[in-house]
Amino acid sequence: MRTHLCGNVTENLTGQSVVLCGWVARSRDLGGLIFIGLRDHAGVLQVVVEPENKPAFAEAEKLRNEFCVRVTGTVRLRPESQWNPDMATGRVELLAETVEILNASAPLPLLMSDDDGEEVRLKYRYLDLRRDRLQRNLRLRTRLTRAIRGYLDGHDFLDIETPILTRATPEGARDYLVPSRAQPRSFFALPQSPQLFKQLLMMGGMDRYYQIARCFRDEDLRADRQPEFTQLDLEMAFVDEADVQAIAEGMVRAAFREVLDVELPGPFPRMSWAEAMRRYGSDKPDLRIPLELVTICDAVREVEFKVFSGPANDPGSRVVALKAPGAAGQSRKQIDDYAAYAGRYGAKGLAWMKVKDPAAGIEGVQSPIAKFLDGSAVAGILEATGAAAGDLLLFGADKKPVVNAFMGALRLKLGRDLALVEPGWRPLWVVDFPMFEFDPDEARYDALHHPFTAPAVADPESLKAHAGEAVSRAYDMVLNGAEIGGGSVRIHDPVLQQAVFDLLGIDEAEAKQRFGFLLEALRYGCPPHGGIAFGIDRIAALMCGEDSIREVIAFPKTTTAGCPLTGAPSVVDAAQLDELHIQLKPGK
Amino acid sequence: MRTHLCGNVTENLTGQSVVLCGWVARSRDLGGLIFIGLRDHAGVLQVVVEPENKPAFAEAEKLRNEFCVRVTGTVRLRPESQWNPDMATGRVELLAETVEILNASAPLPLLMSDDDGEEVRLKYRYLDLRRDRLQRNLRLRTRLTRAIRGYLDGHDFLDIETPILTRATPEGARDYLVPSRAQPRSFFALPQSPQLFKQLLMMGGMDRYYQIARCFRDEDLRADRQPEFTQLDLEMAFVDEADVQAIAEGMVRAAFREVLDVELPGPFPRMSWAEAMRRYGSDKPDLRIPLELVTICDAVREVEFKVFSGPANDPGSRVVALKAPGAAGQSRKQIDDYAAYAGRYGAKGLAWMKVKDPAAGIEGVQSPIAKFLDGSAVAGILEATGAAAGDLLLFGADKKPVVNAFMGALRLKLGRDLALVEPGWRPLWVVDFPMFEFDPDEARYDALHHPFTAPAVADPESLKAHAGEAVSRAYDMVLNGAEIGGGSVRIHDPVLQQAVFDLLGIDEAEAKQRFGFLLEALRYGCPPHGGIAFGIDRIAALMCGEDSIREVIAFPKTTTAGCPLTGAPSVVDAAQLDELHIQLKPGK
Repeated sequence: MRTHLCGNVTENLTGQSVVLCGWVARSRDLGGLIFIGLRDHAGVLQVVVEPENKPAFAEAEKLRNEFCVRVTGTVRLRPESQWNPDMATGRVELLAETVEILNASAPLPLLMSDDDGEEVRLKYRYLDLRRDRLQRNLRLRTRLTRAIRGYLDGHDFLDIETPILTRATPEGARDYLVPSRAQPRSFFALPQSPQLFKQLLMMGGMDRYYQIARCFRDEDLRADRQPEFTQLDLEMAFVDEADVQAIAEGMVRAAFREVLDVELPGPFPRMSWAEAMRRYGSDKPDLRIPLELVTICDAVREVEFKVFSGPANDPGSRVVALKAPGAAGQSRKQIDDYAAYAGRYGAKGLAWMKVKDPAAGIEGVQSPIAKFLDGSAVAGILEATGAAAGDLLLFGADKKPVVNAFMGALRLKLGRDLALVEPGWRPLWVVDFPMFEFDPDEARYDALHHPFTAPAVADPESLKAHAGEAVSRAYDMVLNGAEIGGGSVRIHDPVLQQAVFDLLGIDEAEAKQRFGFLLEALRYGCPPHGGIAFGIDRIAALMCGEDSIREVIAFPKTTTAGCPLTGAPSVVDAAQLDELHIQLKPGK
Repeated sequence: MRTHLCGNVTENLTGQSVVLCGWVARSRDLGGLIFIGLRDHAGVLQVVVEPENKPAFAEAEKLRNEFCVRVTGTVRLRPESQWNPDMATGRVELLAETVEILNASAPLPLLMSDDDGEEVRLKYRYLDLRRDRLQRNLRLRTRLTRAIRGYLDGHDFLDIETPILTRATPEGARDYLVPSRAQPRSFFALPQSPQLFKQLLMMGGMDRYYQIARCFRDEDLRADRQPEFTQLDLEMAFVDEADVQAIAEGMVRAAFREVLDVELPGPFPRMSWAEAMRRYGSDKPDLRIPLELVTICDAVREVEFKVFSGPANDPGSRVVALKAPGAAGQSRKQIDDYAAYAGRYGAKGLAWMKVKDPAAGIEGVQSPIAKFLDGSAVAGILEATGAAAGDLLLFGADKKPVVNAFMGALRLKLGRDLALVEPGWRPLWVVDFPMFEFDPDEARYDALHHPFTAPAVADPESLKAHAGEAVSRAYDMVLNGAEIGGGSVRIHDPVLQQAVFDLLGIDEAEAKQRFGFLLEALRYGCPPHGGIAFGIDRIAALMCGEDSIREVIAFPKTTTAGCPLTGAPSVVDAAQLDELHIQLKPGK
């Protein structure tokens, strides 16, 4: 139906006859001529219709925005004074010979700009998708998955599909359920990940597997969560963590090179989970921000200020300082705002100190808590933080998880507010995660990753004896403060697997009921194996510079897990439910 | 953990030290030495363990089939008398230095051969997958999807994911439903295809879309059906059927070239639906079989045999002959078997005629119906079929759909039984499908494809006036008797779309309720568009020479839509259902 794409018409076509299809981006009558901005996915071209060409002019007069048209004509150079340097097609225009309306458009229900609200954008997604921003984002996403596939294809991975109608998986989030018609009173679950199937594939001798897999979690949604999301999932047999990390790092590096023409720094640095928590209060530190939490327990252990000395003397707590360089000029109001922000992450208060003259010790600082500190404490703080005149110090003192949560959040906010975020990409491997978290309410351990993650100690007895300190063979890939991938070496020994289940309070009967087929499979020569999974939506959003993954998904759902376009979910006939052996709960 | 793959160890590694991982395919003690067949996905290598190497020998003595092991050793040439020409590694063997058991295996619950039953193969799929057959099949499938992606990536298609949690789609099969927790009493449906979303993407200016998409149908399963299956789905804007067919044909051609090193004949021939039904009794004729249905209405219009003359004079019926060359020697029993076979496809009986001497007319044939036919009828039949001495003729006479069903099936069976199936690949486009089938029970038309298929006549009034004869712009790609792909140009005019809905008995209220968002979308400058979808499982099975698609799916379901491995579907807690606002139907 066309000979060229609108966005590709440039000077080298001058004098040629072309046929173009597209949408009317704008249309105006100027000096008796009609000028049309004709848009397709490649770009916009100016079309001119002269009144002498009566049939074409008559059609052109009917055009409104988003009419779908076909235009034939001759490409001609514009006078140099009319060149538009902002458009690839800006030096030429099409003198129309025929204008054919392929489809009219009703008046538009939205502005087709960033000013449109979320709900209307999703309801008319087919119009929203015509915008530059979403065209660019979805095209980038295609290039991303293509680059990933190309890399893995080149490294002998098999692309294998695993079931979507399956059994409840062990990630622990809420499953979406699908009632079975053929097997009354039974339900499929949609997978939260292909975890168990990819392990079974390794047991099946597939050696190297990958899949760009849809995953499902029926959770209450936040801005960056969707009920269905896409994971690059891979698994390898006969490997250790270094093998998996090398492939994963190579893949991410190749993707950034091919999609963004960016060479990521390498090799990616490795940091233990403990160090990440200590220095950044986070297991996914944004290394673009040159601020760190400085432990000042030693300096404040003896002070009369119990808010500091209490935690400083408790091994489960910590006292930290965060130095905001040159921020001593911040107003009381600004500091109060930081305190409120920290409060949202669990802070009971936010002590601060403005440094005027560090050489003067306690006399050189201004702080509401100065009177509770002694000179040596202040000197110790100033020394530990390396604070200089004009710096602002913010303090956190509490149980370690609490301090890390709010001081980690505050670090990110200060970094942004003070424009300290360095440009570029800062990847990082976080390793040596704790194997378990102790859950005091349930008086048992919880798995920090999933229960198939191998511990660094392979002996079941040593693991049980030192569960609290056990480190796992898990690893996360972090990029600019986002966890983009996570994986581990898996347990391949059925005895060790049962030991981990025991520690998690899953007894043999429950283990058999929930994961019996996996335990059974471990009995038949399961190879050592490990893998990793990446959040494709998140990586695409990072690459596109978008805050929300909704901007890189063609048809995302709202925060109430609905689709304003199709109206899903919707009511169904009682007869349909009847066939599925279920009924609606009475009431309401 | 390894330096090489077992299957890749050949003479050029002679003398080298290698480290291998894999499974014990066989193990035997011979003349004091232990010989191990060590298998990984690349192949099997013979490992020799000498008794002088005490630690290795002690480990090797423990080995049973499917133990997972790591072996180090030196590659050496076997004596020429012991070369095994059936194995790539057959000229060498590994002299073991160390043997390490990575994981033992319990005694195997299946034979790991084609003799294993379906249920046990699926229950222990991780063992079944280690077999050559499934390794080969899944590797071929990976190459197939890679070739398809490569072709489409090279033709400017975007790989875009569409929702799996969505609204009931219009294919008409039964949907899988997913109860919504966030929106009580509402349900998502799993898509039977991405049909509506891909049309919306064209309206969204995405120009060319593809997806290797999981689709779902809750139907009673046949041997070649699965509740979830995989479709290569593509759609293009600003195209007609020739454009879509050119891309589809190029893609299939590229896939066969890259996967099987086969150059498909081209261009693919085109045949109208009417011709396919007339000559082959099927809309997916297997052109490898050189048999055709020959219409003999003219010859038998006047005979007293009402079984023939009745249908011969009824425009809705037909009388056909199928010539089985050289099959006149078939016994009565064999012919009875054909009659029984035809009966399964709707035949009330199966008339036959053995040709002894065609020049002798009625005297030269043997047939239980000869006495009801006159000489000119027999002469006419012999002439129409070109029957020669020794040929067997089989006859069908009934309503056209009935004749086509059983004579089409008989044609395939005869082709196989008489070994007439020619080797190679015979692709075909079937085009000019009827737009509608009249449903006499409901006194309305049904769509032969889905209701968004464009009719050849674009004017709503002419379409309504001649609906019974209307031809659609749909096309199927047929290969060796299997429909591997089907598509159409879609309706892009809301008035024409409503006219089609009217003919299908879908009034405006129902159309709005079911497809309102699509009708709405058609109002905003929808471009002309069309596409096609291919059954990936079926194409992979064809390429692998497998009859069942279960052999090309890693974790297929049984014919009762269950998974013997994971036990899905399974019972769930009442509390889970409660959160989803549903309950089990009482009773049973």
